Amino acid sequence: MADPSTTMITSPDNEKLKQIRKLRGRRERDRSGLFAAEGEDLIAAAEAAGAGARFVLVAGTDVEPALLDAVSALGSGSRAIGVYEQRWSAPPGADSPPALSVYLDAVADPGNVGAVVRAAHALCDGPVILGPGCADPYSPKAVRASMGSVFGRPPARVGGPEEIAAAKLALDPLAEATVGEVELGPPVVVCIGAEREGLTPELRASAAATARIPVRPDGPESLNAAMAAGVALYELGHRMAGRA
Amino acid sequence: MADPSTTMITSPDNEKLKQIRKLRGRRERDRSGLFAAEGEDLIAAAEAAGAGARFVLVAGTDVEPALLDAVSALGSGSRAIGVYEQRWSAPPGADSPPALSVYLDAVADPGNVGAVVRAAHALCDGPVILGPGCADPYSPKAVRASMGSVFGRPPARVGGPEEIAAAKLALDPLAEATVGEVELGPPVVVCIGAEREGLTPELRASAAATARIPVRPDGPESLNAAMAAGVALYELGHRMAGRA
Repeated sequence: MADPSTTMITSPDNEKLKQIRKLRGRRERDRSGLFAAEGEDLIAAAEAAGAGARFVLVAGTDVEPALLDAVSALGSGSRAIGVYEQRWSAPPGADSPPALSVYLDAVADPGNVGAVVRAAHALCDGPVILGPGCADPYSPKAVRASMGSVFGRPPARVGGPEEIAAAKLALDPLAEATVGEVELGPPVVVCIGAEREGLTPELRASAAATARIPVRPDGPESLNAAMAAGVALYELGHRMAGRA
Repeated sequence: MADPSTTMITSPDNEKLKQIRKLRGRRERDRSGLFAAEGEDLIAAAEAAGAGARFVLVAGTDVEPALLDAVSALGSGSRAIGVYEQRWSAPPGADSPPALSVYLDAVADPGNVGAVVRAAHALCDGPVILGPGCADPYSPKAVRASMGSVFGRPPARVGGPEEIAAAKLALDPLAEATVGEVELGPPVVVCIGAEREGLTPELRASAAATARIPVRPDGPESLNAAMAAGVALYELGHRMAGRA
């Protein structure tokens, strides 16, 4: 997987370095279908998931460290950067859907999107399904926040919640039922609205049920979007496992 | 709370602007005991919690917008920045301790620290207790990630876990029991180790029990530190409420 060249890159005009730099922008990621993953942990996660790299540059071996730092999206100290093809899971369909997935609607913070990709990989059998207005899960911050789970459980994407063939449970801080009380059999998709605006009328209308995560009366109105997704997946996954 | 001056600040050499800029650095925050909160949501959270501002600068009212942007730690578009005194909760002591708190050991990412401050405010009655090596909860990124909960439930700090007078439940992905199985009566402090290194031998030795959050065998080894804290607080808080 490593760069087969035995010559150390010493010029910032090197094509691979230029490609990594361009992949910091969404336009180039969308155009090429590629993305960059930074750090030895992520490159190991890619290998573990069988995701072949277009190339990997290791500082001090393949490239002068300062040149790799200069194209890093995450600040200095990157010891390795790999370029990979974006992979996308199919959204849950009628044919043997996963028991539990999560749908994000206009969740715009890449750290939140990456954190949910990680949580879904740990807590449920289905992918994170990204609706309109979500941050790119292949942006540097989202890939980093996923801690490699974009490789292990690639996200899915849809044009809207109506494309998902499963019972939708929309999280709503004002719902009457809690996530521990609501009764929905698998397949279930937990639906999360935008960080500030919450659920859209469309998402609300297409949901089979709404539920809240119980929070303290002296606390904030709600959890952060990623934390809410993780807690809901934990609760529902736990109960599904108990039923099985 | 707002700046009583009726004169618009038009110079980057203004003392208030200089102070906000300096508060981006930990040294100045430690020296002064102050911090800056950015954004109207956070300033509203401060008011709701009764945290008086030293001053608040509103773009277009108190200061030229470009000058406020120039001292923002979070990029352009800040419409208001307030300067506040740091507040610290007492760590749980022998005298009527909270039923449930969370301790972070060397959790170095400010976004994680802020996310746990938020989750604790929502899910438990005790504070986030910060041990050695943690990110400053009053750094701009942590304050932003707390979504104002640093005002509503100020963090506590200790020199080490031995200073906490409560039963400690340390999260360990390799523990035999799950957080849903372990039996510990309140007061309980959920303990989280560093993002990469996990629990130190000292923390492990001082814990009354260890437990894991169950994750899928085909998933990652563990959840992100903040997500793990949130899920554990949810599970334990839920069970404590059921017992009451």
